[in-house]
Amino acid sequence: MQPADNASLITPFYVMELLARAKALENQGRDIVHMEIGEPDFSAPEAVVEAGVRAMRAGQVKYTAAAGLPELRSALARYYGEHYGVDLPERRIFIAPGASGALLLALAASLNAGDEVLLADPGYPCYRNFVRLFGAEPVSVATRASDGHRLGWPQLRAAWSGRTAGAIVASPANPTGVVLDEPTLGELCEGVAGQGGFLVSDEIYHGLEYGPRCPTALQFGSQAFVINSFSKYFCMTGWRLGWLVAPDSHVETVERLAQNLFISAPTHSQYAAVAALADPQARAELEQRRLEFQRRRDYLQQALARLGFGLSAPPEGAFYVYADCSRFTQDSDAFARDLLEQAGVAITPGRDFGETAASRHVRFAYTTSLERLEEGVKRMERYLAGVSRDSAAPGF
Amino acid sequence: MQPADNASLITPFYVMELLARAKALENQGRDIVHMEIGEPDFSAPEAVVEAGVRAMRAGQVKYTAAAGLPELRSALARYYGEHYGVDLPERRIFIAPGASGALLLALAASLNAGDEVLLADPGYPCYRNFVRLFGAEPVSVATRASDGHRLGWPQLRAAWSGRTAGAIVASPANPTGVVLDEPTLGELCEGVAGQGGFLVSDEIYHGLEYGPRCPTALQFGSQAFVINSFSKYFCMTGWRLGWLVAPDSHVETVERLAQNLFISAPTHSQYAAVAALADPQARAELEQRRLEFQRRRDYLQQALARLGFGLSAPPEGAFYVYADCSRFTQDSDAFARDLLEQAGVAITPGRDFGETAASRHVRFAYTTSLERLEEGVKRMERYLAGVSRDSAAPGF
Repeated sequence: MQPADNASLITPFYVMELLARAKALENQGRDIVHMEIGEPDFSAPEAVVEAGVRAMRAGQVKYTAAAGLPELRSALARYYGEHYGVDLPERRIFIAPGASGALLLALAASLNAGDEVLLADPGYPCYRNFVRLFGAEPVSVATRASDGHRLGWPQLRAAWSGRTAGAIVASPANPTGVVLDEPTLGELCEGVAGQGGFLVSDEIYHGLEYGPRCPTALQFGSQAFVINSFSKYFCMTGWRLGWLVAPDSHVETVERLAQNLFISAPTHSQYAAVAALADPQARAELEQRRLEFQRRRDYLQQALARLGFGLSAPPEGAFYVYADCSRFTQDSDAFARDLLEQAGVAITPGRDFGETAASRHVRFAYTTSLERLEEGVKRMERYLAGVSRDSAAPGF
Repeated sequence: MQPADNASLITPFYVMELLARAKALENQGRDIVHMEIGEPDFSAPEAVVEAGVRAMRAGQVKYTAAAGLPELRSALARYYGEHYGVDLPERRIFIAPGASGALLLALAASLNAGDEVLLADPGYPCYRNFVRLFGAEPVSVATRASDGHRLGWPQLRAAWSGRTAGAIVASPANPTGVVLDEPTLGELCEGVAGQGGFLVSDEIYHGLEYGPRCPTALQFGSQAFVINSFSKYFCMTGWRLGWLVAPDSHVETVERLAQNLFISAPTHSQYAAVAALADPQARAELEQRRLEFQRRRDYLQQALARLGFGLSAPPEGAFYVYADCSRFTQDSDAFARDLLEQAGVAITPGRDFGETAASRHVRFAYTTSLERLEEGVKRMERYLAGVSRDSAAPGF
């Protein structure tokens, strides 16, 4: 009895090993600064928690409709109207167990075996694994530091082949924090639609943007799949709640998939999410947190540049800095392991995000307090002084 | 842009249409007796709810490890020891978003395109849809009322072909309530293992058994995938929490799949589930509910037999009675629709569970109070008197 071929192609998160080692060191009494975690350090706002508590105590934890709680779907439709000026019919909105669930629905509804799907490299590692699961083939489109790691239509068009079925893009992007502006995203949507391909626009980091507001693919027609979640901006990771906006051509298919794959998303989380969208105090709290993330970003990108990391462009969203570490190492994996052992700072090596220049990049997450970031930077400074001194030494 | 081929093969739940009509009638002021719903009418015990509330208020709603909260995995390992006398290593236990998530993991880890998978007909409709999603082919093995709708190794062996990769069996089964006893399940596990195939044993209705205790496939070796959930016996449907026990040969693959497909299962639900397993008062409450389900079953099967429905064998588990309605109709779909319109009783037509004799069967769920079941039976009695009178009438 052998594991399935497609499942065998799925790569693990390499950072998990490093996480396990960090935990082992902590158990030995070491203090570790965590800059590897893709999860907000904040909890959901109180009004959100209390809405969840009310639902639980009232026994409102039955299955919902597969597409989600009607009040949540209409709250999201209103949100798209207010936030983006987009008129979105509720029938196109599907509540899912996390953005992961939303991505599963979008790809299950779109992919045939043998299809090619274009993806940014570096990019979120799960994309390519989801694609493989359906017997389709992820095709990496390398983005370049010199373009600020932007993936636009020109790059996609150049990679588009007769087997290409569609593309997945993210803005703000993980790991780079890059945001696609209106002209770039608009041209990309139009280009993909012109090829008759599908476009998945991953907007999970929307709201965590530090420059102009991120546009949604829904502003440029109704053909894209949009995935999003309450995990990042709304700080509701473990609540496992996301959503998919599907084009009308796929609504009926997605409905059947959702019925079969999930039955429904967590119910108390759905009631809590209604409060996350509607409660004015929760919204004010979330805005304060966005400003706090911005302060951390401002600090971290300057500090990293000062230490000698290469930063192609200021990250405009999400909570990551993707940095070139080639001044210190040509092996970012070994560098991250050593940084953990020697300095007690945990970061993510580039390998988890693709192959292009992965060995020369690492990702820093600013999902910990400014004080802890400062501590991390201080430790790295000491560590790097040692590395520069020893850089000719064998074994590194 | 067309929906994917495999996704297009996925069938909807036909009962959804009937549910929508029932809701419309209720909105018009009609009283409907619901005997179509596969969800306990009970909520989670109070100790379970309060454990969830504590986790939420303490901000313990972060991502867990992909395989689940360590305390929940060890609580489940203990549960298998106490309940079944099975020594189960924690590494084989994966917490998933519902039994649906567990089934997705098991099949994603096992299926290649073109594989055949044997399934009982009648059976839970999602099985065949999951199989189709991976480009594999569900092969129905008809069970017969004369065998008490039992699916054992002799029937599987007769259907096993060169393309068969494995089988999915359920005990207690939906929609029949049939339980596989130790010799039957043991022989089945051995038979499938002898073919080198995979076996998924769906044990989601375990605990809801009214005769001898259901055995688990884990008693007969360590090669089966076992799926289960907190939804049915533990009355935690909307909490979306289930689990998979995987064979050691697939643990590493399942781990990578879980990381990519789900990140993790809902965290507050996992804390609540620890209480569901460990809290003595919660367990006592659940036992009371099991006895209440048993009283309902005893009433309903007698009442249905008295009305003229054919019952092959007493349902020994779950909360369903699968009944032959051929004395009244050869079209169970039209029968269910008419029963709803004329008598205000909602039941599920056989078509949702397969093709074998589907038009001559309907499923009754006893997920409503004894009083409501009695009211439903009273209404059906009046309605059936009319049908018998009019049975030669055109259009029925």
